Amino acid sequence: MTEARTGPLRHLVSIDDLSLAEIRTLFERAAEFAADPRAWSHLGRGRISASLFYEPSTRTRLSFESAMLRLGGGVLTAADMKTSSATKGESLADTVRVVEGYADLIVLRHPSEGAARLASQYSAVPVINAGDGSHEHPTQTLCDLYTLWIERGRLEGIDVVLAGDLRYSRTIHSFIYALARFGANIVCVPHHGLELPDYVLQRLREEYGAEPVRADASRLGDLAAQSDAVYITPQKPHQLSLFTEASGLKVEHVDAVYMTRPQTERHTPEETTADYLRLGHATLKADVLRDAVVMHPLPRRDEISQELDADPRSIYFKQAARGVPIRMALLAALLGQIELGDAHPPVGPKLYPAPLANPCANPTCISRTETRHVQPATKLLSRHPLRAACGYCSQELTFGFVGCAEDRVYWPKESGEARRLRPERMVFLRDAPLAEAAGFRAPVTAAVVPPS
Amino acid sequence: MTEARTGPLRHLVSIDDLSLAEIRTLFERAAEFAADPRAWSHLGRGRISASLFYEPSTRTRLSFESAMLRLGGGVLTAADMKTSSATKGESLADTVRVVEGYADLIVLRHPSEGAARLASQYSAVPVINAGDGSHEHPTQTLCDLYTLWIERGRLEGIDVVLAGDLRYSRTIHSFIYALARFGANIVCVPHHGLELPDYVLQRLREEYGAEPVRADASRLGDLAAQSDAVYITPQKPHQLSLFTEASGLKVEHVDAVYMTRPQTERHTPEETTADYLRLGHATLKADVLRDAVVMHPLPRRDEISQELDADPRSIYFKQAARGVPIRMALLAALLGQIELGDAHPPVGPKLYPAPLANPCANPTCISRTETRHVQPATKLLSRHPLRAACGYCSQELTFGFVGCAEDRVYWPKESGEARRLRPERMVFLRDAPLAEAAGFRAPVTAAVVPPS
Amino acid sequence: MTEARTGPLRHLVSIDDLSLAEIRTLFERAAEFAADPRAWSHLGRGRISASLFYEPSTRTRLSFESAMLRLGGGVLTAADMKTSSATKGESLADTVRVVEGYADLIVLRHPSEGAARLASQYSAVPVINAGDGSHEHPTQTLCDLYTLWIERGRLEGIDVVLAGDLRYSRTIHSFIYALARFGANIVCVPHHGLELPDYVLQRLREEYGAEPVRADASRLGDLAAQSDAVYITPQKPHQLSLFTEASGLKVEHVDAVYMTRPQTERHTPEETTADYLRLGHATLKADVLRDAVVMHPLPRRDEISQELDADPRSIYFKQAARGVPIRMALLAALLGQIELGDAHPPVGPKLYPAPLANPCANPTCISRTETRHVQPATKLLSRHPLRAACGYCSQELTFGFVGCAEDRVYWPKESGEARRLRPERMVFLRDAPLAEAAGFRAPVTAAVVPPS
Repeated sequence: MTEARTGPLRHLVSIDDLSLAEIRTLFERAAEFAADPRAWSHLGRGRISASLFYEPSTRTRLSFESAMLRLGGGVLTAADMKTSSATKGESLADTVRVVEGYADLIVLRHPSEGAARLASQYSAVPVINAGDGSHEHPTQTLCDLYTLWIERGRLEGIDVVLAGDLRYSRTIHSFIYALARFGANIVCVPHHGLELPDYVLQRLREEYGAEPVRADASRLGDLAAQSDAVYITPQKPHQLSLFTEASGLKVEHVDAVYMTRPQTERHTPEETTADYLRLGHATLKADVLRDAVVMHPLPRRDEISQELDADPRSIYFKQAARGVPIRMALLAALLGQIELGDAHPPVGPKLYPAPLANPCANPTCISRTETRHVQPATKLLSRHPLRAACGYCSQELTFGFVGCAEDRVYWPKESGEARRLRPERMVFLRDAPLAEAAGFRAPVTAAVVPPS
Repeated sequence: MTEARTGPLRHLVSIDDLSLAEIRTLFERAAEFAADPRAWSHLGRGRISASLFYEPSTRTRLSFESAMLRLGGGVLTAADMKTSSATKGESLADTVRVVEGYADLIVLRHPSEGAARLASQYSAVPVINAGDGSHEHPTQTLCDLYTLWIERGRLEGIDVVLAGDLRYSRTIHSFIYALARFGANIVCVPHHGLELPDYVLQRLREEYGAEPVRADASRLGDLAAQSDAVYITPQKPHQLSLFTEASGLKVEHVDAVYMTRPQTERHTPEETTADYLRLGHATLKADVLRDAVVMHPLPRRDEISQELDADPRSIYFKQAARGVPIRMALLAALLGQIELGDAHPPVGPKLYPAPLANPCANPTCISRTETRHVQPATKLLSRHPLRAACGYCSQELTFGFVGCAEDRVYWPKESGEARRLRPERMVFLRDAPLAEAAGFRAPVTAAVVPPS
Repeated sequence: MTEARTGPLRHLVSIDDLSLAEIRTLFERAAEFAADPRAWSHLGRGRISASLFYEPSTRTRLSFESAMLRLGGGVLTAADMKTSSATKGESLADTVRVVEGYADLIVLRHPSEGAARLASQYSAVPVINAGDGSHEHPTQTLCDLYTLWIERGRLEGIDVVLAGDLRYSRTIHSFIYALARFGANIVCVPHHGLELPDYVLQRLREEYGAEPVRADASRLGDLAAQSDAVYITPQKPHQLSLFTEASGLKVEHVDAVYMTRPQTERHTPEETTADYLRLGHATLKADVLRDAVVMHPLPRRDEISQELDADPRSIYFKQAARGVPIRMALLAALLGQIELGDAHPPVGPKLYPAPLANPCANPTCISRTETRHVQPATKLLSRHPLRAACGYCSQELTFGFVGCAEDRVYWPKESGEARRLRPERMVFLRDAPLAEAAGFRAPVTAAVVPPS
């Protein structure tokens, strides 16, 4: 429902839409809510949230709806958008502009990466990303961080083991970025062959100054038996040097083990999970794990034995339950019912118009299906080397040349001329023939050097 | 929930169930509700509506449920009745009598024409028709009329262009009847081959005295480029003659353009929509359209270009949003929480018992599937010529003879004897052999003249 | 939501989880609620129930949700658990431990027998069994008993005819046990070949002292025309002898006829229902039926003619409506909002651990699918003869021998040694080879006599 708002319209598309200070405020409010969940039913009174789910996710939906009900609000549920309105072929941009007339807030789950970003561009009410394909799931990240914060009292400097399939779950990647952003240290204990991808490590280094170091995980026992561990820390190099040795950094104490399921559906035939780690009593006997809480985003399959359920360190069900108060806090904030107190919050990534048709190569990016409503947009990742990503799905763009939207000249991406272009003028071009076909021309003053 | 009611039990099966005065009251209350949607949560407090949807329609369902939540009521949702209880083969009449025990009001969507009429005959709580096959969708009509009333301040005498596929959407036909009833003028700009059916024109003439006139739509420009326009006005003939010319009535000013999507699923192979009208900036440049609002029941496909979304005349998303306050008013009225103030409201069409088995030829009429619970009923359309329609789906009956239920004599439909029978005694009979088989006999005093 | 509770955590898995005194209190409270259903919206305020439905059952779900809304509570709906989270392969035990974080009470419908028992073992919030396969549906039983109590003012000593397919519906069997428990008399009028199974009669005799007597049902007319009626009464033998004759006990007066649908989906090819009883005006003309109310759990098909709908004795739709107040009372009780007033309520059946893997032979028992989370448990039915049932699905176990978990010796089930074992030590073994394979040995002091 469009109406006069006291504050500016805010969405939660990515965890980066919130500042660290705002996230901490959400934690504090969530803890208050959790202490007496029935005492806050005035905050959402008369408000309605709409769950627009284009793929089923009972758990996430119920968690949001529980939070909204606890706030005293009402809930509209469209749990199966795929088979209902989609049969009439309506675009997401149109659906959002209809549903904003029915609700005060939209919770969106969609199989296409970037769907929530697109929805937020059209919606007059707050949009919360409840998962867009394999891209982001920021409230899962909030829930995980909140759980760590509750259990450890802080996030900065704590040591979190991430175990299992670290390659394919982008929600795990989002969690890693957020841990780095908060100054937590990450010990990666991947299943063999399912290590963190290079682009994640690169982003950790570029954006958060987090440095991966080879780790000596021998004290982790069974947990790291089959793994080459990596320690990633956002600490300053001079601090790091204090405890780095030739044999790698020694893991001495662990605050949390975050176990992940194998993303079997995305594996290549070579990526077997036959001997995938299974957390059990034996695994948790290592001395450095004695205080470590065990987390899992659920649902689990075999990667955590049910024999651990009774172990007081197993908090995965508590972790799921904490999704309710943290979502209460988020809903209340976006509905303008509580203040997050940051005078200069982030306003989403800086996106630049992409003057040519959308250049994203990701086949499940929303920019590929909502061609009429998408506003082609790119995110500049770095200037040296020149790297850019799709403004919707965040996937890095592949290009050999960059054209200037003004003088229509194109340059090799490695050239100084390309790097010096103003971002809003950059047109990313796969190769020279495509550039020429799009009406760009090679610079006359210098020979174009093709990329090696 | 059956209980003592202060007023009589009212349903909304057809828009004709409401008097013009009542509809105007609904508009006024809806406007009050829209001004402060959260101020009315006392009206539905403690009340429950049940959404019984036998085919998916997320938009309509969410609009109703939003309205009920805004009134402070509770909502029961059965969004997929087709695959759930229908698997146990329960009749609609039984389901309704069960659900009336759970809710204070039933919102019914069903693929069979006449389903809401049948449900209303069995329900002890108000039934609202949220679409019965291709028959009626009265709250869509209310929403469209309310939008025009808000935008133009009145309905009488305004000029509304209806463009596109005017042949197959019966909800468009319902809208046209309602416009005529309120004294609005209709400019039909159909896609070639998808003109208004004759029976719609006939009903407009018979029931509302609305006269179709050939129109000169040259000033409508692109909008009418491929079309022979027709102007339909419920005004009195002497008024009409003032501005009729040999070349047809000239369209000088348009209040609204109501665009419709092609009902492709119902088209014959000859009815192509290859060059179907697409509203865009160019179309709206005609001077007579400068103040015209653009409406669409949504979802749209290509018939309205997204370039129009930013045009202030485009109000299709506002139109969708207005479905909530008008439905709030309707729900509040049927729940007995607001007065509509008409001492003598209509009580639905006058139906006569059909003493033989239901004679409807419409294969998707509810009377064909709920054979045990249907109370065969017919609606007399006219006496001269003798015409009758199914009391459920409103489809005109095909018959050659009429029998008298009392003396068991049958007459040709063109005969004076047939026309003079009392409606409650009329038995509609396809042909003479069927009449004889059903135990009727030809009149002995005169030779039966077979219909030519 | 786990939190401090004033009373102990109670579930409703089986009707036997409630004492007779508690059920009577529920009736009284339900009658109060029904008198003014909107006056109790404080009882559930701020509480949330979650409908977890692993198979569709719109009627049962809506009845529960209506009850919760009437209490002023909120509702989370997962109507299609089968196709949503189950696709990710999560166990019921895990799902329950997640959902308990979202809701204050779980209403569970599941196709596997024993599912609600298992869920209750893991849930920190009350679990209500809304149907577990063909096992139990205790709130249907409560609703039926409540209806009889309202109509007749008491249950003890009333005469209830059960007609139709008495063989296959276990919910009918649950109803029969409950009638016997309350001291009602049952007149069985089965369709030919679909008589009450022997194990039901046996349990009636063993647990409730209810004695089947051949009945003279001649005064029931058409209702019993094709049937050999059986009269089952929990009255003491000396009372019974007063009115037993050689020709069988004469049915003189009937308080209620409970009609059941043929469970066609479970019938063998020999079990035809071609001439299945159809209740109509003619059937109800018998003098002994003049005051009998007609009940049916719905949905009905042909077994009750719609001509009876207008008969004041037909109360099947009222019966459905009464599901709401009785469920309101149950929800309020399990949420700790009303007192049931029994200082020593039953706490579910006494279950004994089954030291070997679960021995249940029922392929749809939850113990067969949730192998990781099940706590193999058995219920001792009798010592002479030695009989035991699965603690989840209640199906009787088939075994030839019983081993002692302590000394690992096994005995024939008929032996005195077997019967004298303490129940918590009993291991039920199909045959001697299996016993030996499981590490048990035959007693050395006596020859093992194989069961004949």
